[in-house]
Amino acid sequence: MSADAAAERTETDALGEAAVPADALWGINTARARANFPVTGRPCGELRDLVWAYGAVKLAACRANAAAGLLDRTREQAIAEACRELMRGDLDREILVDRVQGGAGTSTNMNVNEVVANRALQLLGLAPGTREVIDPLDHVNRSQSTNDTYPTALRLAVHRGIERLVPALGRLAAEFEARSAEFCGIVKIGRTQLQDAVPMTLGQEFAAFAETVREDAARLREFLPHLREVNLGATAIGTGITAPAGYRRKVVAELAEVTGYPLTSASDLIEATSDTGVFVLASGLLKRCAVKLSKISSDLRLLASGPQAGLREIMLPPVQAGSSIMPGKVNPVIPETVNQVAFLVVGADTTVTMAAEAGQLQLNAFGPVIASSLLDSVALLTGAADLLTERCVRGIRADGESITARTRDSLAVATGLVPLLGYAPTAALVKEALNGRRTLAELVLDRGLLDEEQLGAALAAEKLTGEAAPPAEHPDGRAAPPARGAAPTTAPP
Amino acid sequence: MSADAAAERTETDALGEAAVPADALWGINTARARANFPVTGRPCGELRDLVWAYGAVKLAACRANAAAGLLDRTREQAIAEACRELMRGDLDREILVDRVQGGAGTSTNMNVNEVVANRALQLLGLAPGTREVIDPLDHVNRSQSTNDTYPTALRLAVHRGIERLVPALGRLAAEFEARSAEFCGIVKIGRTQLQDAVPMTLGQEFAAFAETVREDAARLREFLPHLREVNLGATAIGTGITAPAGYRRKVVAELAEVTGYPLTSASDLIEATSDTGVFVLASGLLKRCAVKLSKISSDLRLLASGPQAGLREIMLPPVQAGSSIMPGKVNPVIPETVNQVAFLVVGADTTVTMAAEAGQLQLNAFGPVIASSLLDSVALLTGAADLLTERCVRGIRADGESITARTRDSLAVATGLVPLLGYAPTAALVKEALNGRRTLAELVLDRGLLDEEQLGAALAAEKLTGEAAPPAEHPDGRAAPPARGAAPTTAPP
Amino acid sequence: MSADAAAERTETDALGEAAVPADALWGINTARARANFPVTGRPCGELRDLVWAYGAVKLAACRANAAAGLLDRTREQAIAEACRELMRGDLDREILVDRVQGGAGTSTNMNVNEVVANRALQLLGLAPGTREVIDPLDHVNRSQSTNDTYPTALRLAVHRGIERLVPALGRLAAEFEARSAEFCGIVKIGRTQLQDAVPMTLGQEFAAFAETVREDAARLREFLPHLREVNLGATAIGTGITAPAGYRRKVVAELAEVTGYPLTSASDLIEATSDTGVFVLASGLLKRCAVKLSKISSDLRLLASGPQAGLREIMLPPVQAGSSIMPGKVNPVIPETVNQVAFLVVGADTTVTMAAEAGQLQLNAFGPVIASSLLDSVALLTGAADLLTERCVRGIRADGESITARTRDSLAVATGLVPLLGYAPTAALVKEALNGRRTLAELVLDRGLLDEEQLGAALAAEKLTGEAAPPAEHPDGRAAPPARGAAPTTAPP
Amino acid sequence: MSADAAAERTETDALGEAAVPADALWGINTARARANFPVTGRPCGELRDLVWAYGAVKLAACRANAAAGLLDRTREQAIAEACRELMRGDLDREILVDRVQGGAGTSTNMNVNEVVANRALQLLGLAPGTREVIDPLDHVNRSQSTNDTYPTALRLAVHRGIERLVPALGRLAAEFEARSAEFCGIVKIGRTQLQDAVPMTLGQEFAAFAETVREDAARLREFLPHLREVNLGATAIGTGITAPAGYRRKVVAELAEVTGYPLTSASDLIEATSDTGVFVLASGLLKRCAVKLSKISSDLRLLASGPQAGLREIMLPPVQAGSSIMPGKVNPVIPETVNQVAFLVVGADTTVTMAAEAGQLQLNAFGPVIASSLLDSVALLTGAADLLTERCVRGIRADGESITARTRDSLAVATGLVPLLGYAPTAALVKEALNGRRTLAELVLDRGLLDEEQLGAALAAEKLTGEAAPPAEHPDGRAAPPARGAAPTTAPP
Repeated sequence: MSADAAAERTETDALGEAAVPADALWGINTARARANFPVTGRPCGELRDLVWAYGAVKLAACRANAAAGLLDRTREQAIAEACRELMRGDLDREILVDRVQGGAGTSTNMNVNEVVANRALQLLGLAPGTREVIDPLDHVNRSQSTNDTYPTALRLAVHRGIERLVPALGRLAAEFEARSAEFCGIVKIGRTQLQDAVPMTLGQEFAAFAETVREDAARLREFLPHLREVNLGATAIGTGITAPAGYRRKVVAELAEVTGYPLTSASDLIEATSDTGVFVLASGLLKRCAVKLSKISSDLRLLASGPQAGLREIMLPPVQAGSSIMPGKVNPVIPETVNQVAFLVVGADTTVTMAAEAGQLQLNAFGPVIASSLLDSVALLTGAADLLTERCVRGIRADGESITARTRDSLAVATGLVPLLGYAPTAALVKEALNGRRTLAELVLDRGLLDEEQLGAALAAEKLTGEAAPPAEHPDGRAAPPARGAAPTTAPP
Repeated sequence: MSADAAAERTETDALGEAAVPADALWGINTARARANFPVTGRPCGELRDLVWAYGAVKLAACRANAAAGLLDRTREQAIAEACRELMRGDLDREILVDRVQGGAGTSTNMNVNEVVANRALQLLGLAPGTREVIDPLDHVNRSQSTNDTYPTALRLAVHRGIERLVPALGRLAAEFEARSAEFCGIVKIGRTQLQDAVPMTLGQEFAAFAETVREDAARLREFLPHLREVNLGATAIGTGITAPAGYRRKVVAELAEVTGYPLTSASDLIEATSDTGVFVLASGLLKRCAVKLSKISSDLRLLASGPQAGLREIMLPPVQAGSSIMPGKVNPVIPETVNQVAFLVVGADTTVTMAAEAGQLQLNAFGPVIASSLLDSVALLTGAADLLTERCVRGIRADGESITARTRDSLAVATGLVPLLGYAPTAALVKEALNGRRTLAELVLDRGLLDEEQLGAALAAEKLTGEAAPPAEHPDGRAAPPARGAAPTTAPP
Repeated sequence: MSADAAAERTETDALGEAAVPADALWGINTARARANFPVTGRPCGELRDLVWAYGAVKLAACRANAAAGLLDRTREQAIAEACRELMRGDLDREILVDRVQGGAGTSTNMNVNEVVANRALQLLGLAPGTREVIDPLDHVNRSQSTNDTYPTALRLAVHRGIERLVPALGRLAAEFEARSAEFCGIVKIGRTQLQDAVPMTLGQEFAAFAETVREDAARLREFLPHLREVNLGATAIGTGITAPAGYRRKVVAELAEVTGYPLTSASDLIEATSDTGVFVLASGLLKRCAVKLSKISSDLRLLASGPQAGLREIMLPPVQAGSSIMPGKVNPVIPETVNQVAFLVVGADTTVTMAAEAGQLQLNAFGPVIASSLLDSVALLTGAADLLTERCVRGIRADGESITARTRDSLAVATGLVPLLGYAPTAALVKEALNGRRTLAELVLDRGLLDEEQLGAALAAEKLTGEAAPPAEHPDGRAAPPARGAAPTTAPP
Repeated sequence: MSADAAAERTETDALGEAAVPADALWGINTARARANFPVTGRPCGELRDLVWAYGAVKLAACRANAAAGLLDRTREQAIAEACRELMRGDLDREILVDRVQGGAGTSTNMNVNEVVANRALQLLGLAPGTREVIDPLDHVNRSQSTNDTYPTALRLAVHRGIERLVPALGRLAAEFEARSAEFCGIVKIGRTQLQDAVPMTLGQEFAAFAETVREDAARLREFLPHLREVNLGATAIGTGITAPAGYRRKVVAELAEVTGYPLTSASDLIEATSDTGVFVLASGLLKRCAVKLSKISSDLRLLASGPQAGLREIMLPPVQAGSSIMPGKVNPVIPETVNQVAFLVVGADTTVTMAAEAGQLQLNAFGPVIASSLLDSVALLTGAADLLTERCVRGIRADGESITARTRDSLAVATGLVPLLGYAPTAALVKEALNGRRTLAELVLDRGLLDEEQLGAALAAEKLTGEAAPPAEHPDGRAAPPARGAAPTTAPP
């Protein structure tokens, strides 16, 4: 017997025999899957949340099977311990199948079954592959199918990912708010369609960033309950075939205990088995979040454009020498990263959509690409939110001097005169001021359209920028004057 | 003076003069917009829900302005009546600007302002264009901007569209349920990955269609409140510039009364003015709905494939002679229509996503293409749901004979033996039965693996198909035997 | 007999009888299709190029059938004349079926067959519906199927559309070039990542717009031959069933003559019948064009931002009063329209992609939605290109004063010193200049790093902006000095 | 001095100082980039083709700089050797920056510059970081910018990837052809819209698969020249700033020699620097390829559906035990993998499209996400094509028995009677046969519509399936009888 052969064991499945390393916890199904699916080169074991969730599912099933008398105490304890190790991440490197694979996730499920069985055997002091004692299918996978375990695990994994994304968005919103508080006294020109519109404060602009991010966090949080409706116990197609009576209720209860989530059982398990609607919706929410982060990032880049030939209202913290050719150039690389993450997330949404649409009859065979795309999107967005918070928003400074220079004598205050003078007369004044050399205030006063007091009141920064405060804080419907401390840069002389 | 000139009136705007037909209710802004935006050839007036909503917004603003003393009684009454006509659809043919246009919806807003002003003048017995009495901007648009009226109107329009879509989905679900009830006794082979899996009833299959559609209806219904948070009163960029004190609260209250919707004011109006997140989310929900209807339609086409060389489990009602060359061919044209509608809705979601992502600073200038895409999607899905209900699902018949022929002696019952015999031994039996000429039952009995009673119990149709019933109806966790009336086609002899 | 009944005729198809208006040229198949497909409300008759192409296909088939002895001279002449009327657009209003329909285009084909047959009957002095003389199927559709006529007609229709798009892009490129020539002497600061980069001329910037548009036109032109490979003669699935010997060669030759296009027959007709690859590719090219026009439009909006608080390097011609609230505001509505058209085209590409992917076995049933999306995209882009040319680019003016103010003393010239001083030393100078009050030139001269002559040579506008000229015109590898006439705004004093 | 400090060296850039491991070939820019861009966790060094291409670009630049007298012989030789090592893959593990990063690729370029410089120093016997001898910027990056090197390298990398994809598609087409030859005598029922259409051979069906794949290979091959037009020498924005006279021509010629590709210089370097049209087009072509492979895979899964309750015309080779619950089930996991790869590629196209559209002014800052998406797509498709070839198509077997059973007495031959009997009479016969118990042939003969000889001729398999042969091989316009050897299963008795 050669040394090589000594280091291998032979396993058998429906297709025949194959050799696996003697000490591998994975077995023949994993071996075949690795050969069959050299797709992305990225093993499932990298999807930490999915492995954690699969461990939880296997642990719950183990307990429910034991409760139904289908597993003896020894097997139950060994399998349960192996499941806990899987949940903790101790066995990630044994989950080797490619994250994208044919077969609706069967290879992931079998990889997990094999690793749990063989690790349980090790815990019992037995060699991996001693299937007569613990069999990946007859013991670990008992009362289960890929078709209920994989979608259930994926729901939990996405849930867990979103649980990290939501606070990351919260931190980002808080950071925008901190900047908003700093910038609340800086009156600037708001822009619509990239054209000068009406005055606002830089603080208001940053508060809007905070609010929009916080809304996304809220939408994601509201969505979580949909992920907690699982089809575990459905087995192959939702009829519960092979599962003992009462198993479904039991296994869902066990899974709730293992994970700490208040899980419920889908009302129609046949529907729930083939349905991927919840993942389409999750992807849509992530896309919304991506779109907003991208819009904000583009705004930050625009506001920071310059330093001399741009808008230059804010300065982003330099984190990277900007150019290999232009000395001193500092580029907005963090927002640019966020834009790119957004494009990836939108692309992933297309992938998820197509995969969902392509489901057929009692199953959607494309769960793995949905899993890979969704879990990547959650992780990318979480990372992008943190990056934006820590390496960009935290260090943003306003260029008050540049803003003031632009705001002074701006014609954007003209809208404040419309209620007093009418639209068309005001428009004529704006045109004249823009073409000529006189300010709007001069024109108004010279022609006796308003007196100084009237004009001052109409164009006071508080008045021009003031209605945006939330109703909750201002029950009388009038806003507090957030710009009170502002230099009266928009007021006439 | 020539006859032609007599039939025209001349109007003026900031760019100069232009002639419009003397009796046109629209004016110079509309005239310019028609010349500037020959984009889709589809006028805004075709977007019934948007015109209705814009009428409601203008009516609410008219009342709020009157309450603030900014409109006298005569003007208020005339403008209000014109707004009601707009809401009713009487003025649709005057809303002529292209639905896709530059300018964030300004041309739609101005078209509406002009039509309301001129129709109000008519009601007062005055000629269109008498702007000194009622001016499109100073009276109809008073205290408003495109940037708060357009997004508000679009939210209401989408809301109203979804209010029609939800019951259409309900009717479709009900029709699937009716078929489910008819088909509940027909045992067939469930399929995963297009391969024979395990038994189920055709009734269960159609119940799953019903459930999945009903879930979409529920998600859409839950979403409606988000559309009821409006930014009316924000005016240009959210600061409320030009609006009198208290106006915002008043106008939202008036709009709630006019529309009957419990509207709320966005908490941060600057954020709400540029934010299109609610439309991205709406589009995502519509896409989810599209994806599901497409999946169902593909399933129906697959199940109806044949008549001789296909699966032929169901027969769709013939509604169109199928082929210009193949006599007697009847094609699944209704589901094919639904598939195509789904592809349009998914495409529209891409459009909405890109438009939303491209927003800049205090405004998203691309509201019109978002409106056009979203409102089309809602209408297309509503029509598709009704079409599927009435011209397809209602007339679906099962081909019981064909199904029974396929189910009898099927090896798909083998999974029922796994709990008794183990996975690998059962797999070996399946392989033998598939290659040889003997049924699974014969092999099991001949080898004394089970006796007839055990075998019959393991393979009873009720047992094989029975666990899918919802827990609410079966509090003991065991499902009722939905297939009780079924011919025991899957049982061994 | 009632007057109503008198105005109707009854027709029969495989599904039974139906009444159609007595004078309608369309018949029972069209009537059913109108009832079955109330999808978009947009009739096929609006797709001018498709109707033209279908007329051409029917004419070619008529001639080929006549040549094979399958149509007598009387029928041939009547049918041929009806086809020519169809091509000319005289019968567009009779092509009433919805552009999106189930059935792979069968209803469009049947609508055409019915209209051609009945119009031919009219030309013979007979009543519509006299099917024993001219039958829509046995005579007009002879030797044909929807499955070869529809894809063939669609290819021709897209071809014809692109033939209009290419010169529209040419006109746009020419207009950009005209501006480029005007702006060639204006030295400005080029921007990368929205940060000031290095000098260039405004003329160079507009020349790049011209070039990128011209490239798209070239790619589209190169693509046209792929559309000229048709599957006419394939009939139902590519086997040519029902067509007489030699028909395929004959009908393609006739179609080439009718259309003037050098058509070829697909090498594998079975492949060609189900394949939609050419449409995916067409859509991809249109998307590329859309993406570029969108990028250019965004650039124009950015360069025109202001008038006071933006980049303000160019001024777009005002075409629409910009705001309903902000007097004097003029918005970049034409580029914004182009952006939106681009988002529609990208969305349509998603639709085409999904429809193409969903083809099954010997046919793609989703030709109608591909046709609708593609033909819309071609028309939208053509319109957008013309709009941009005529209502925007033609009237663009440079704000030389504003540009010069920004370019003078800009640190963006620093890169020109790198070859002389090294990257790190130059970067240090830039940092010092940016923070302090001295110009780069002053620092360089004061420290004796370069003398005035060296510095002047290094920073001459010609040198800084000059290497971009195309090699063809400058065989020696050195560019002509395009900026020779420029005021030496970037040079040191 | 501590041991730790001894293992580090300190480097300086415009932002300050940072420590890097003393023996690292990468430097401070890479260190910062690793901290700034923890995005995908996938280092650039994994993109073998991109690293190869960047090595080639640096080598060409080194030679061109030396030729211009800007690098002495010692430096040139050391740098050139380091570049060759980079091309060979010896330094992949030093290219550590995340593939998705802000800054238009600057960090990738700087990582490469640092590694080449430090490796060159090593080759000279000097320590990494000896920047006074070889500096990453002043020597390795001399006359270059990220903005010309990155797009140039990306074009070469995509080119190289497609050069592998094209033959992979060729192998797949060849394998389909081999099956086609095996299956040429098997007459089956062709299907349109999943309904039985007309006869064809299984060989014809597989020949169509071959043809469609070959067409994609041809389109990709035709596209390659577009990738060979590079902007190297453009430096920062296309003006060639910092590059010496003649450099551009020289460096492109050197790059052509180094890579063996006949490269050309873009005609407008300013346009070429910001333009990403070529990548949008590449992505569109890859998407087309993905769509086709997905359609084929879906067809294979459909044709292999069963084994008992499906179409079962072909059997895919089993490569993986199919189910964790259903014994004996073998699933079409390889085609399912290909479907999922297609969904990834379509998603990546969305990402590329959005990134391309978001370019601004003189640069597209989102090159890295374009690179990551495109290079992934090329690699995924290449792997998928090989997988499909080797693990699926090679082992496909026809189930002749099952096909024959379905083809015999099929009504799908009826279309062959239309030219003889007319459409409506044939349709009536089909209806009668489908409802009754008699075959089409019996009905035709009994009613004396045709005699046996006429009928036999009309329905001969050769005639029904025969017109599909390509014209090139059959100049007389009649097809060779590909089904000659077929059992006359479709003929009447």
